[in-house]
Amino acid sequence: MTPYSCMTTEELNTAYNQTKADFDTCIAKGLKLNMARGKPSKKQLDMVSDLLTVLSKPEDCFDGDIDARNYGELAGLPCAREYWADVLGCKAEQVFVGGAASLNMMFDVVSRAFTHGLLHSPRPWCKEEKVKFLCPAPGYDRHFAIGEFFGAELITVPMTPTGPDMDMVEELVKDPQVKMLWCVPKYSNPDGIIFSDETIQRFANLKPAAPDFALIWDNAYSIHEFFGDYVPFPDILELCEKAGNPDMVFEFASTSKITFAGGGISCMAASTANIDYFTGIFGVQMISYDKVNQLRHVRFLKNKAHTLEIMKGHASLMAPKFRLVLDMLDEEIAPLGFANWNKPSGGYFISLNTMNGTAKRALELCKQAGVIMTKAGATFPYGIDPNDSNIRIAPSLPPLDELKQAMEVFCTCIKLAALEKLLNK
Amino acid sequence: MTPYSCMTTEELNTAYNQTKADFDTCIAKGLKLNMARGKPSKKQLDMVSDLLTVLSKPEDCFDGDIDARNYGELAGLPCAREYWADVLGCKAEQVFVGGAASLNMMFDVVSRAFTHGLLHSPRPWCKEEKVKFLCPAPGYDRHFAIGEFFGAELITVPMTPTGPDMDMVEELVKDPQVKMLWCVPKYSNPDGIIFSDETIQRFANLKPAAPDFALIWDNAYSIHEFFGDYVPFPDILELCEKAGNPDMVFEFASTSKITFAGGGISCMAASTANIDYFTGIFGVQMISYDKVNQLRHVRFLKNKAHTLEIMKGHASLMAPKFRLVLDMLDEEIAPLGFANWNKPSGGYFISLNTMNGTAKRALELCKQAGVIMTKAGATFPYGIDPNDSNIRIAPSLPPLDELKQAMEVFCTCIKLAALEKLLNK
Repeated sequence: MTPYSCMTTEELNTAYNQTKADFDTCIAKGLKLNMARGKPSKKQLDMVSDLLTVLSKPEDCFDGDIDARNYGELAGLPCAREYWADVLGCKAEQVFVGGAASLNMMFDVVSRAFTHGLLHSPRPWCKEEKVKFLCPAPGYDRHFAIGEFFGAELITVPMTPTGPDMDMVEELVKDPQVKMLWCVPKYSNPDGIIFSDETIQRFANLKPAAPDFALIWDNAYSIHEFFGDYVPFPDILELCEKAGNPDMVFEFASTSKITFAGGGISCMAASTANIDYFTGIFGVQMISYDKVNQLRHVRFLKNKAHTLEIMKGHASLMAPKFRLVLDMLDEEIAPLGFANWNKPSGGYFISLNTMNGTAKRALELCKQAGVIMTKAGATFPYGIDPNDSNIRIAPSLPPLDELKQAMEVFCTCIKLAALEKLLNK
Repeated sequence: MTPYSCMTTEELNTAYNQTKADFDTCIAKGLKLNMARGKPSKKQLDMVSDLLTVLSKPEDCFDGDIDARNYGELAGLPCAREYWADVLGCKAEQVFVGGAASLNMMFDVVSRAFTHGLLHSPRPWCKEEKVKFLCPAPGYDRHFAIGEFFGAELITVPMTPTGPDMDMVEELVKDPQVKMLWCVPKYSNPDGIIFSDETIQRFANLKPAAPDFALIWDNAYSIHEFFGDYVPFPDILELCEKAGNPDMVFEFASTSKITFAGGGISCMAASTANIDYFTGIFGVQMISYDKVNQLRHVRFLKNKAHTLEIMKGHASLMAPKFRLVLDMLDEEIAPLGFANWNKPSGGYFISLNTMNGTAKRALELCKQAGVIMTKAGATFPYGIDPNDSNIRIAPSLPPLDELKQAMEVFCTCIKLAALEKLLNK
């Protein structure tokens, strides 16, 4: 195959006609496939079914002498705090255990910052003239949405192969209106990048002008390798503490992609001063998150070592899907030279950059052919990709045969959109 | 026994010496008992153990074709919305299903009102010069705490035997700064009052000056009879709609005192316009509450009729405890004429008014003797009972023998505090 950039107009027209015919064939199939979200597949959910019955009798429901079924233990069952400390490499007293969604706890941190301020805030953020959030992009649309919801100005920071552009981050945090940075440090969403040790250390060493600058460290994929072995990852809490920034970081994690996406547990890890501060606030908000489910998870997942065993099971289901997507892209798209993509070994996504100015059109074509993808632009603040190029592929949900069909449609559509552009169609 | 008010000083001194000796005997026992919170007892929790295993296999985890284990269904599983509609007598589309704590959803409603405003708010409440909440008292300390946390001015409205003083409520809502009223309409916390039909209708008919006035209808004890049969209760949503106030009311309920206090499900019921508005907001905040637990509950509780059967089981454990407390008060306190209390047939509390100016002291004495009660004043806004008289008794947690011991201490302590006051000790 010749790269599009080396084709004559005639060759491009031939390619266009062939691709258009392929597209029409796709349409005719009347598919209904979904790769919009990083949802676990049914097989992954079935794999952890023992979670359902691990607590079956009253006497199973105790953590020491604490009855998980009753009120109390606002910050979580001691065993659940220890579990998360083990997984994240921090201390149990730095952990506040949450409900099904870590996103809700991130939202709550931002919400409290706006209504009451964080631990070192001179005033609630709603009283500030302006509040700015740094958003490494491509990134996670739900992170951006929270900032936008509270009226923060979202500033895009480009991603590099080692993480966010730290020169830019270090410069931007000199602005006292910059109050927050959101990131996914391991297998970043969607790029699948693991932040380098240097990047992580530079985060810990940040000298923000705002005394209440908060680093949102969404460690959603901390143990989510699908190719190869578990990659150790430093404890950001300790690094921040050593760098004299103990209260700067809020780390989050959940079992959404370990057990049940619709019924897991989550956690916030932060300095004990922050945990104390937020425990005071959560004490107004609720009595406790679901402790029965906390205990159910600890009994089933046991500890980090055993959880990593379970993650091997997820990997065995995820790896063939990522392999398929990467192979198809290598075969069908790489020779044409108009797109590039990452090759992650963990996380839930493949981030693809197609020809500038064609991502929206390509996904519109996908939709016409019955394949739903994450909305173009979603990986950028305000949903606007300045290059209209980035597309997030989420291969986890469909079974392999459906994934293959969906990727055939996808490859056809990004080709067709590129050819339309090259030929001004 | 002679009432204290009819005793001579000599008789009071004799009574004091006897009661002081009783108190010293209590102290010597070295008790450690807790009646501070309306916590279900272990027997109640054990009674619903089938909840733990009602979902045991992957195929159990579907509501129709929706996999409860995966992401999605922000407003709750359809079957869970239908379940709550059945219990509360409203419509499924008026229900948003929540996590373990309905309190958290009330908090979220207030939090959003302050940061973004409610459906009919001219502006977010944080932009208002002042915001006032009406607080029928005695009431629930956690309701008051949320208002106080957001800086609302809390205005006490006295409770009457038929509910809050509605003349006063109707007058107060003419003030456009009055934005909210919090109440527990059935078996009110702590008075155990069921609002009369007239009171409920007057609530529905309110003509508040604030276009975004919100009635927080915390129906925490909607099916929680312990003496006698289930008492039907009107659907406040329909009454408000008929009165031309469809968007004024937010109703809440939970299974905290039906299944597990530490692992139940909850709901918010409101007009479909409000549910739409809040679904948009919750969509920024989270992916969904725990749907596996929603399904677990629906399978176990089935419907209202079956839930009422389960409540009969709770009643069989609760009734002897309330009987014991009421009998002891009747025998030991009633003849002395310095205190009065309600005799509820449902809910979780007995509200007792002891001699003015002695509640704090009495509970201090209880604490010395190893019996922890809800803090004096907790049932009033800002934790200040103007008469220092109201005490909330929560008999549900301790087994009967412990409850008897605790009540012996309690009776001794309120007597001693009253005698101290009468004798200026």
